[in-house]
Amino acid sequence: MKIIAIISFLILTSGYAAFSQEKQNSDTKERNMAVAEKGLIKVTVMYPYAEGKKFDIGYYETKHMPMVAGFLGSNLVKYTIEKGLANGMPNQPLPFAAIGTFYIRNLKDYQSAVGPHRDAIRADFANYTDIVPTILVSEVVR
Amino acid sequence: MKIIAIISFLILTSGYAAFSQEKQNSDTKERNMAVAEKGLIKVTVMYPYAEGKKFDIGYYETKHMPMVAGFLGSNLVKYTIEKGLANGMPNQPLPFAAIGTFYIRNLKDYQSAVGPHRDAIRADFANYTDIVPTILVSEVVR
Repeated sequence: MKIIAIISFLILTSGYAAFSQEKQNSDTKERNMAVAEKGLIKVTVMYPYAEGKKFDIGYYETKHMPMVAGFLGSNLVKYTIEKGLANGMPNQPLPFAAIGTFYIRNLKDYQSAVGPHRDAIRADFANYTDIVPTILVSEVVR
Repeated sequence: MKIIAIISFLILTSGYAAFSQEKQNSDTKERNMAVAEKGLIKVTVMYPYAEGKKFDIGYYETKHMPMVAGFLGSNLVKYTIEKGLANGMPNQPLPFAAIGTFYIRNLKDYQSAVGPHRDAIRADFANYTDIVPTILVSEVVR
């Protein structure tokens, strides 16, 4: 009986040790993910809304953004797409029809990755919009 | 020797089982976190850059944004702050000095939470900026 008790104890403690180690890794990972955006550079491509202008968000999501993202390699942390709904001030026009954002580690690598494809990227614009975007480069502070 | 081998085997497999179970939970959690922004509403407060205008990003980060965030309760998923660095187009002026963004679950709850504090929020503007912000309400598509 004693040997069984020892075996059981060893099994339980080794299982718990593995669990608690992995739990700790997972907690650290989550904490890292939560703060991971801080310090990143954002390249935010904003399409100002104007009546009569077109913006095909389906094409933008399934074709254009994945194409550009594909040029960026491991410098790209993530990219997001948002659709403008309203102006936050009452009775004001929608400021932007849509916004696409690349979260990158550094701007230099972004520029040299995108540079050789600039013509292809611009040529694709006509497939989803006739709006000239405003592009903001910013740093995530928080 | 045989009993030792069995013990070792049991310890190893029970440890692995615990590890692999937790690993799976952690993978699922990460996947959920990665897609968690999709469908959220963003209230993006954009401060257009203009020469001679002020923006105290320290005050904005430590006082103003936490104050507003504090009104939003569990409707607030997260908020971010970014500092404008440059225009993405060469030889163009910086479009925005700073941007603050609230990621919320729904706009109605945001409006009714902020409504009673509108005067306090506006009164605090003078403590960090003299820029009139543009506010975009948008939906995270991706």
